Amino acid sequence: MVYSGEPVLAEDLLFKPEHSLIEQSLHSRMGATTTNGDGFGIGWYGEGPVPAIFKSVEPAWNDRNLREVTTQVRTGLLFAHVRASTGTPVQRSNCHPFRHGSWLWMHNGAVGGFHELKRDLMFAVDPSLYPDVEGSTDSEALFFLALTFGLEDDPIAAVARAVGFVEEQAERRGIPNPVQATMAASDGHSVWAFRYSTAHQSRTLYHSTNVTRLRELHPELEMLRTLSDDTRFVVSEPLRDLPGAWREVPESSCGIIQPGDDEIRPFEPTRPALVL
Amino acid sequence: MVYSGEPVLAEDLLFKPEHSLIEQSLHSRMGATTTNGDGFGIGWYGEGPVPAIFKSVEPAWNDRNLREVTTQVRTGLLFAHVRASTGTPVQRSNCHPFRHGSWLWMHNGAVGGFHELKRDLMFAVDPSLYPDVEGSTDSEALFFLALTFGLEDDPIAAVARAVGFVEEQAERRGIPNPVQATMAASDGHSVWAFRYSTAHQSRTLYHSTNVTRLRELHPELEMLRTLSDDTRFVVSEPLRDLPGAWREVPESSCGIIQPGDDEIRPFEPTRPALVL
Amino acid sequence: MVYSGEPVLAEDLLFKPEHSLIEQSLHSRMGATTTNGDGFGIGWYGEGPVPAIFKSVEPAWNDRNLREVTTQVRTGLLFAHVRASTGTPVQRSNCHPFRHGSWLWMHNGAVGGFHELKRDLMFAVDPSLYPDVEGSTDSEALFFLALTFGLEDDPIAAVARAVGFVEEQAERRGIPNPVQATMAASDGHSVWAFRYSTAHQSRTLYHSTNVTRLRELHPELEMLRTLSDDTRFVVSEPLRDLPGAWREVPESSCGIIQPGDDEIRPFEPTRPALVL
Amino acid sequence: MVYSGEPVLAEDLLFKPEHSLIEQSLHSRMGATTTNGDGFGIGWYGEGPVPAIFKSVEPAWNDRNLREVTTQVRTGLLFAHVRASTGTPVQRSNCHPFRHGSWLWMHNGAVGGFHELKRDLMFAVDPSLYPDVEGSTDSEALFFLALTFGLEDDPIAAVARAVGFVEEQAERRGIPNPVQATMAASDGHSVWAFRYSTAHQSRTLYHSTNVTRLRELHPELEMLRTLSDDTRFVVSEPLRDLPGAWREVPESSCGIIQPGDDEIRPFEPTRPALVL
Repeated sequence: MVYSGEPVLAEDLLFKPEHSLIEQSLHSRMGATTTNGDGFGIGWYGEGPVPAIFKSVEPAWNDRNLREVTTQVRTGLLFAHVRASTGTPVQRSNCHPFRHGSWLWMHNGAVGGFHELKRDLMFAVDPSLYPDVEGSTDSEALFFLALTFGLEDDPIAAVARAVGFVEEQAERRGIPNPVQATMAASDGHSVWAFRYSTAHQSRTLYHSTNVTRLRELHPELEMLRTLSDDTRFVVSEPLRDLPGAWREVPESSCGIIQPGDDEIRPFEPTRPALVL
Repeated sequence: MVYSGEPVLAEDLLFKPEHSLIEQSLHSRMGATTTNGDGFGIGWYGEGPVPAIFKSVEPAWNDRNLREVTTQVRTGLLFAHVRASTGTPVQRSNCHPFRHGSWLWMHNGAVGGFHELKRDLMFAVDPSLYPDVEGSTDSEALFFLALTFGLEDDPIAAVARAVGFVEEQAERRGIPNPVQATMAASDGHSVWAFRYSTAHQSRTLYHSTNVTRLRELHPELEMLRTLSDDTRFVVSEPLRDLPGAWREVPESSCGIIQPGDDEIRPFEPTRPALVL
Repeated sequence: MVYSGEPVLAEDLLFKPEHSLIEQSLHSRMGATTTNGDGFGIGWYGEGPVPAIFKSVEPAWNDRNLREVTTQVRTGLLFAHVRASTGTPVQRSNCHPFRHGSWLWMHNGAVGGFHELKRDLMFAVDPSLYPDVEGSTDSEALFFLALTFGLEDDPIAAVARAVGFVEEQAERRGIPNPVQATMAASDGHSVWAFRYSTAHQSRTLYHSTNVTRLRELHPELEMLRTLSDDTRFVVSEPLRDLPGAWREVPESSCGIIQPGDDEIRPFEPTRPALVL
Repeated sequence: MVYSGEPVLAEDLLFKPEHSLIEQSLHSRMGATTTNGDGFGIGWYGEGPVPAIFKSVEPAWNDRNLREVTTQVRTGLLFAHVRASTGTPVQRSNCHPFRHGSWLWMHNGAVGGFHELKRDLMFAVDPSLYPDVEGSTDSEALFFLALTFGLEDDPIAAVARAVGFVEEQAERRGIPNPVQATMAASDGHSVWAFRYSTAHQSRTLYHSTNVTRLRELHPELEMLRTLSDDTRFVVSEPLRDLPGAWREVPESSCGIIQPGDDEIRPFEPTRPALVL
């Protein structure tokens, strides 16, 4: 889940259940009622340009420190993630979001054949970045590849090259359909939300539309009144059945939440043609 | 879940999935796929008369230390429990099973109105036992009341008085249907499994029947061949649909697994008529 | 440690080592170099009247979430505590500070014979407060006794009665010198710091004096320049050898940090003469 | 610490204080009184050829599960380690001992300039082993290099090449004195204990001598009576001042504890002359 909008208490975004657009999503995704019990994390921009992260292997609803902290933290840009491990250890350093400098990154999905590909992918990471890798997951590998390929300068091109590189390596080893990914990245100002899979059968991704319009449609929803006009949510699953509230990010595309008008751009991997 | 039988590796009971009678139960109950994510615990008898306990607030399937330990521990009497918190903190001291001396105790269910009743119940605990209470749950309160009322001498009578005392206190305060409980207790030799609720609408409780008979019925099940004749499981939910494999512990009764023949006895609370 | 002053980043108070008045104290007290490894906690006032608490059984210097959070939290009133267990379980609910409503409480020291006294003390806690006790420590018992005896109305009188009650119960049971305590309480506006022991051999307690004066004495200390004039620290041990920086809270007294002039008042327990 | 001898309860090795040769060492090394608070671990051989490991980031003395487990585990070959982080994250996967197949590995010391060298070192790990690396430490890198260079066939030669390789890479980058290491490895039958540093100023390493002889010298020590003749301890620091009890492993050598007579062999790194 990504929240972008006026600074609000993180608690209101994560734990306040009444009239919340995201409660259902979080309730299911943050470990209370589903199999997503392999850790959670939030990242948020507040004081200074570097976002803070709070990650844990305990189920989010059980983490009392998380609940305490969210009562005190105001943020206009929050990432929240619940992890379902695909085999790598359940430990804090493998929880999302990942951070590098002022960038946050999170990923739902998996790199097929990662155990086999891991070494190739890790050694393509820029040597100056390599020592900063702390965990052992495919998601962090994707992040560091994207950083290697220029995430900080041109996020869409960098992610396209990172994904293309993974596909290239997988092809070399005969691994079919290696990439399944919804991913989000932010520099604290804009958010890039990617939906892509090699097989073009990607997990769903939705973003909320104009709050002004929603408010007109749903005057009974108190929470909508308190949200600023530029509020946006990005979520994996359609939430409440509010007609007009959610727009699907199309297959193979990238949604950009930014100052000014949001955008949806097509997303296709590019082969970086690295010689290892 | 309770296992009683020949000493086997705890790993075989808890994590070996193939041909396991209990895999389904544990898979659902130990945190991998359900809402029971508020901690787990095992207790087992091995070296010496005092059982060991391993309890944690991490989901059981994620706890690497648990998996390691179960590869090294042989036991003929194992309790395993997954906790769904009913409001008290998620911390190790609130996880089941509970232990006192050579006794183990675990409980599924809840004491209705516990927040209101807690003080009355705790001050009925024998003063010499009181300081040993480590957690803050209704389940541990029931255990210490049962100990107070003679668990070590006459388990059924003691639990009857403990439950009766809770019902008496609840009545005084106008709390309806206070007790909902399946409970198990053991001294390392026998296991007492209780099924009771004030409203006589108790959670289910099953125990496995004679393994010899099962083996005849299901010659294809490899695991059955390795189990000794006196193997017994006690579980909350019917497992595989093996006709003849499971017998329901009836409403308001106590099943006793013991050397010699097992027994089922009726269970009714008695009012201890304590003057506080 | 208590900080009272202009809102500052918690990180600056807890982790910034350079030129910090409190670094030495925290470095030793927060688990990096001493035996105080049984958990830590911070409590702070920020958004709203209810303070937030962050407590953990990991050593403070290892807790990455703590470090992250402190980069984002500004507070003008912070409690920090490192626990050395005196026997009760090492679990979050036993870490300091404790909170009730808008009050924070922490304690260094011990109640002698607590295992023996626990039931008497807990029984004297107001029944309406009793269910809110979450842990099992002498420190939390003292807090709830103080709340029972009116902490929210008259902190010094309430703590005097709480301590007196403990001494009375200890006397009944022949336990000598039961109370050893430096304690701090706050409602978010003032801080009461107590130094008392039955044997009148109390652990030390210091508070910082006027920052203006310190600044004149130590123009070379950068940190002093950034602190507001009303900044106060309360600590257990003398820090840097800054002549004039620290004033010892005398034996059997209570220091009050409050808007306007600070005060030191004598502190003597009173026997509440409860009939149990 | 390494214990090799008759199977004993792990509890007796780790926690029983009375008359214990190793109590002092463990008391200081397992987190109760020193700065070594960044996690601990034990590994032991018991059921089957694969050793079990129990590792945690909590201080060892606070880990109730550890204490429980040690009351139930008998082992004739135990590794115990307390970690002092040199910068890499404090998480279970970075705690010692490390395991691969039937091998255990632990390390005290550091690889100088590891942040800079990490990529070169990891790249030299055999690609078939690479994906099994779970943590991010220099110690695990050394282990996987030793495995790459044939630890399972010729431990001393393999460690010599691993250390030599690290020194070679460090030289290429101008990093002086890169290796500081006492290391222990075992396959469940023998134990190899290395003492080496590039600067030939290695941390100390001691092994206990013949217990029969010790028993004669110290008839008053009860614990010695219960130990079998082939009992050996390897420790970092001299323990009790028992004349004749401890023999220092010399600088640049490897002690081998094995069936039959123990050995001390000189240890010198060899340059594997890898072309990267």
